[in-house]
Amino acid sequence: MPSISERGLLMPASPIRRLVPYADEAKRRGVEVLHLNIGQPDLLTPDLAEKAMHAYTGKYIPYSHSAGNLSLRTKLAEYYKSIGIDISSDDILITTGGSEAICFAYYSILNYADEVIVPEPYYANYYGFTTETGARMIPVRSSIENNFALPSIEDFEDALTPQTKAIMLCNPNNPTGHVYSQKELSHIRNLVRKYDLFLVCDEVYRDFCYDSQHYSVMNLKGIEENTILIDSFSKRYNVCGIRIGAMITRNKDVIASSMKFAQARLSPPSMGQLIAEALLDTPQAFLNKSAEEYKARRDYIIPALNQIKGVHTPMPDGAFYSMVELPVDDVDKFSRWLLEEFEYEGATVMLAPGTGFYTGKKMGIHQARIAYILEMDKLKRAVECLKQALKVYPGRTIDQD
Amino acid sequence: MPSISERGLLMPASPIRRLVPYADEAKRRGVEVLHLNIGQPDLLTPDLAEKAMHAYTGKYIPYSHSAGNLSLRTKLAEYYKSIGIDISSDDILITTGGSEAICFAYYSILNYADEVIVPEPYYANYYGFTTETGARMIPVRSSIENNFALPSIEDFEDALTPQTKAIMLCNPNNPTGHVYSQKELSHIRNLVRKYDLFLVCDEVYRDFCYDSQHYSVMNLKGIEENTILIDSFSKRYNVCGIRIGAMITRNKDVIASSMKFAQARLSPPSMGQLIAEALLDTPQAFLNKSAEEYKARRDYIIPALNQIKGVHTPMPDGAFYSMVELPVDDVDKFSRWLLEEFEYEGATVMLAPGTGFYTGKKMGIHQARIAYILEMDKLKRAVECLKQALKVYPGRTIDQD
Repeated sequence: MPSISERGLLMPASPIRRLVPYADEAKRRGVEVLHLNIGQPDLLTPDLAEKAMHAYTGKYIPYSHSAGNLSLRTKLAEYYKSIGIDISSDDILITTGGSEAICFAYYSILNYADEVIVPEPYYANYYGFTTETGARMIPVRSSIENNFALPSIEDFEDALTPQTKAIMLCNPNNPTGHVYSQKELSHIRNLVRKYDLFLVCDEVYRDFCYDSQHYSVMNLKGIEENTILIDSFSKRYNVCGIRIGAMITRNKDVIASSMKFAQARLSPPSMGQLIAEALLDTPQAFLNKSAEEYKARRDYIIPALNQIKGVHTPMPDGAFYSMVELPVDDVDKFSRWLLEEFEYEGATVMLAPGTGFYTGKKMGIHQARIAYILEMDKLKRAVECLKQALKVYPGRTIDQD
Repeated sequence: MPSISERGLLMPASPIRRLVPYADEAKRRGVEVLHLNIGQPDLLTPDLAEKAMHAYTGKYIPYSHSAGNLSLRTKLAEYYKSIGIDISSDDILITTGGSEAICFAYYSILNYADEVIVPEPYYANYYGFTTETGARMIPVRSSIENNFALPSIEDFEDALTPQTKAIMLCNPNNPTGHVYSQKELSHIRNLVRKYDLFLVCDEVYRDFCYDSQHYSVMNLKGIEENTILIDSFSKRYNVCGIRIGAMITRNKDVIASSMKFAQARLSPPSMGQLIAEALLDTPQAFLNKSAEEYKARRDYIIPALNQIKGVHTPMPDGAFYSMVELPVDDVDKFSRWLLEEFEYEGATVMLAPGTGFYTGKKMGIHQARIAYILEMDKLKRAVECLKQALKVYPGRTIDQD
């Protein structure tokens, strides 16, 4: 039997999904699993999506343009103008989710063994996409003590090698919830300009900034041709399943190169594009309501978690995640124990262990990422459940009073 | 400005799409363009697709399982059983079109600079996907004189190097329309077994075999763990835009590796999966009618083309393509001339130049791929138009009587 590729072996399994069998087993035992682990929100999709589907009367479902429907790109360019980003439909490629946008960007800018610097902890799949590309991801550590602010520019410069080709950011950040300020981004801008790097920034949580205004990398001056924006309809409208994202750049070479990768895969999903185009008419009030709902959940859960002895999590400014330090020996073991051996009032909690968001094997061993996307009642029960678990978990490092 | 990757530079532009600007310009002049160049059929999609969309009442559109919905995989496994391929739902990953299935297979089996042997002419995007992966595609020539039959096993053996990892086939073949016989496939089976290679086979045109029964590589004995099947709903039901395909293999390591790439991109499109699952209930009579329609188009166009002096095309057994030799200096120039300078009764013809389906720069210079997917009336006008064009094209190599 021929062997799997090195890339296939190196590719990380999803850290978030590897606990799934234990959760399934808990559910079989009749235990309710409160999911603090995933990024699948429960807020409503605007009914424009359903209307678009119900209105479909095409006699067949053909490929679209490889760059995505022009009508969608035109309307999307107008959306960006409305939020102060001046780009044209020619600067946009519609992709199969934000994931494919990252892949097209990486294929277009990274040679084999090139390096991308990413603040750590990071969205786990960035590591996957770099591995897929045959490139290397170089982490630069941000710390919970410093609210996961941007690492210092000296730290970035220390990580530079002749192979460094790009910096990748996620803003607002998954998994930390940190929103990079305009000042932080201006430091990045100087670095990118000084070393002539690419800057790839994933801004899919742009609509979920609670205490500050979002500042897009597309508005950083003097690095217009270095900057690539990753975007998605998934979180904004809660339509993760339509798989429609976008890669946006003013760099014509990157667009031309990415277009070749786009042509090879023929086209992004036609039904998803239809829905996405309809959703761009969603009233701002609807989006504001979603953001308010997440803010309320955040405002409840962060203080509630910090009230548990030994638990610490910074107040995140955006997205719907936070990294939480837990008083246990090993969050991987704790997460599995929660699913296999613990229940409180018929329920338990599923966490995303922190190790999945760090490169170093022991990094993040005391942390978990939580997603505060459950409705308030479930969030409250999840916190209570966690509190009770920390009283009895054999590997606890602090005794609760 | 930082530079594009080598992969981005090496990636081929779509040979089929590079003539599009000239076609657009012809249309602007009021000339009707008869498309013999593309693989987008005009046959109806079963109305089960529309019904599935209209029945959707989900309150939001979530991610699906990364492997695709279990209900779809289960039903798809039943479909394979019904056509004599014995596999289970665990052997199936639902992908974003057949394109992504090829990518997952390549990522899982190819290291950087590994080689995949492919009979030439080949589906142009195979070259693209190999480039994307950082691997190399090694062509083994099939010839129009021999009706594009499988090259000899000696030719395959001559192409083997220590870097050879896989053989890639397309059966029925795009662009030649050749259907590999069970005997041809048994030769491949022996080769694959002897050198312990992977065999990747794209069978998306399986339903369109006109003179013979399709034989799947999944039924070749003794290479069960070497074989990877690429499939798609696109052509079978004329739903190219839903972007739902599948990668199927009994090799558990390939499934496990591919699953990691699948998890990184989160999930295939949810709406497409809903439509695909509904379409599996399509009555066989509907599919037979589609195949009969294509057969009728083939039975008209192949003899009609061969009646033009200097034109030669073999009778294809399957799919809806044929490679056609034309009595001109250079089909790339001819194709452009057709769009820029020629019209007959208000119309002209768009071809896919043969060079796009060969690696060697001068190979295929006298060939074009045609897709006989137009309705009969348009097909007839296209043939007449081509005939008239060959009388006056300045670069013709034979004078028509």
